[in-house]
Amino acid sequence: MSDYLIGIDGGGSKTAVVLARLDGSPMGRGEGGPSNYHAVGLENAFAALDEAISAAWMQAGIPEQPVSAVVLGMSGVDRPEDSTVFETWTARRFPGVHVKLVNDGQIALAAGTPQGWGVVVVSGTGSIIFGQDEHGRTARAGGWGPLFGDEGSGYRAALEAIQAVARAHDGRGPATSLTQRVLAFFQVTAPPDLIAAVYRPENSRAEIARLSRAVDEEALVGDLVAQRIVQRAAEELAAGVQSVAVQQLHLQTVPIALAGGFLVHGRSLQTAFLDRVKAIGIPLDSVDSVEEPVWGAVCLAMRMLK
Amino acid sequence: MSDYLIGIDGGGSKTAVVLARLDGSPMGRGEGGPSNYHAVGLENAFAALDEAISAAWMQAGIPEQPVSAVVLGMSGVDRPEDSTVFETWTARRFPGVHVKLVNDGQIALAAGTPQGWGVVVVSGTGSIIFGQDEHGRTARAGGWGPLFGDEGSGYRAALEAIQAVARAHDGRGPATSLTQRVLAFFQVTAPPDLIAAVYRPENSRAEIARLSRAVDEEALVGDLVAQRIVQRAAEELAAGVQSVAVQQLHLQTVPIALAGGFLVHGRSLQTAFLDRVKAIGIPLDSVDSVEEPVWGAVCLAMRMLK
Repeated sequence: MSDYLIGIDGGGSKTAVVLARLDGSPMGRGEGGPSNYHAVGLENAFAALDEAISAAWMQAGIPEQPVSAVVLGMSGVDRPEDSTVFETWTARRFPGVHVKLVNDGQIALAAGTPQGWGVVVVSGTGSIIFGQDEHGRTARAGGWGPLFGDEGSGYRAALEAIQAVARAHDGRGPATSLTQRVLAFFQVTAPPDLIAAVYRPENSRAEIARLSRAVDEEALVGDLVAQRIVQRAAEELAAGVQSVAVQQLHLQTVPIALAGGFLVHGRSLQTAFLDRVKAIGIPLDSVDSVEEPVWGAVCLAMRMLK
Repeated sequence: MSDYLIGIDGGGSKTAVVLARLDGSPMGRGEGGPSNYHAVGLENAFAALDEAISAAWMQAGIPEQPVSAVVLGMSGVDRPEDSTVFETWTARRFPGVHVKLVNDGQIALAAGTPQGWGVVVVSGTGSIIFGQDEHGRTARAGGWGPLFGDEGSGYRAALEAIQAVARAHDGRGPATSLTQRVLAFFQVTAPPDLIAAVYRPENSRAEIARLSRAVDEEALVGDLVAQRIVQRAAEELAAGVQSVAVQQLHLQTVPIALAGGFLVHGRSLQTAFLDRVKAIGIPLDSVDSVEEPVWGAVCLAMRMLK
């Protein structure tokens, strides 16, 4: 048996890989582009995975060699059809190795809950609420992608900020300090110039979602429009937790893991979300932030070998 | 001087052309694909215009020849930069001819108001509120395209319907009769199957916007979720009218033209919109529906020659 295992976090904005010893001690870390195949296509997803895996071996200073276990936590992998598209690739990339392919929510859950069960709320470029009970039963809400709303996500909040700027400019909505932030973000001087800037084909969703940080900051300093966007995001995420934890899994107490840039770094969103969760009476247990979901993939890989 | 003039309506879902005599009597009509260059690119826009123009001559049974005036009402043409991209093409396509390039809102306004001034509310694939006072001063609200919200449009209502189905399926939102309508529209049997169906690259915005008809119908028969979508659309369009007619143009009385498939054929939306306009105290004058905005382009062409 090889001395190494690999954990992979394949997200909508980047791919992170950790190469570790069998006891979980990290040897190398690598990054690649986004690998949600619904968003970037299969070829790009495979290329991003390859790039991140090679980078991890490179950083460890070890020539690539067989490993004992690989866990891939992939965003966009939810249904059986999603798994099959990766099976051929993983069989060729890691011949004869224990490979486990799960949703990226599952690795974040493993990384952010004391017992490895509970609910993880991911709000980054996209959003998903994923839960697992003590018996391994799973449930989810959200994660349908941008055309289905992705309520509570950074991309959604960014779009609502852009829309608020257009509404204010037209006189259809209130003035907001988001106008200056959005203009600066897209490096233009007046709202009508935003049209060309926002529709530039090179603007990825991940890139636009970065604007959610400004929304959170303006909400913190008191802009009412930004506060409404954050509040709506918090309510949507809490409704997802309610559905997953209470309606679907009937959890008596809910260990919660927070993941994704908008939720982990958004102070305003995090406060509003936890307030809302309490307000609707969800029986919260622990609350942990997951900075690096890829460690959950490493945990799951270690567990596979036990 | 030639005996003919041409009116063009270049929309986000199709292009319509009318070839007429100088007194406005129609000789031929042609259609082509969408020609909003922001949505389909310049080459496709030009091809759609060419296709529709040729079809109009063909239907008239007259060989293509010089005309006396051409008016193009183009969606997506709002700012000086937008006009310049069409100038070279029109100069080559209609050498030596009086050509006028305006926004598609302007031709709908000409078609749908008794004196040619007032406010036109367009809700089709996209949405825009465009106004002009008796002195020719213009104002607008909306029309920024889908990433900026296009509140009140058919595409926005269609997306909200799709989102409502996902929310209901997840238990994040109420059950709705839209579920059956959306599943039927995309020809799938269960909500999770919608993901692959909705993200198919061949789904144009215009195609998805057709779903707005189902939203209007379900609102009429009492589905609360559909009613909320329609009500929100009505409020957004009315807010646009308030901004254009009252805040920007200071009109004392407002002749209103209704255009675009969602508003012209959506009975529920039309009622909700007019109710809302009255409720916020906009001094309504005439209300006309514009079935064929291209006739406004013909009117403007006749006026150019006077």
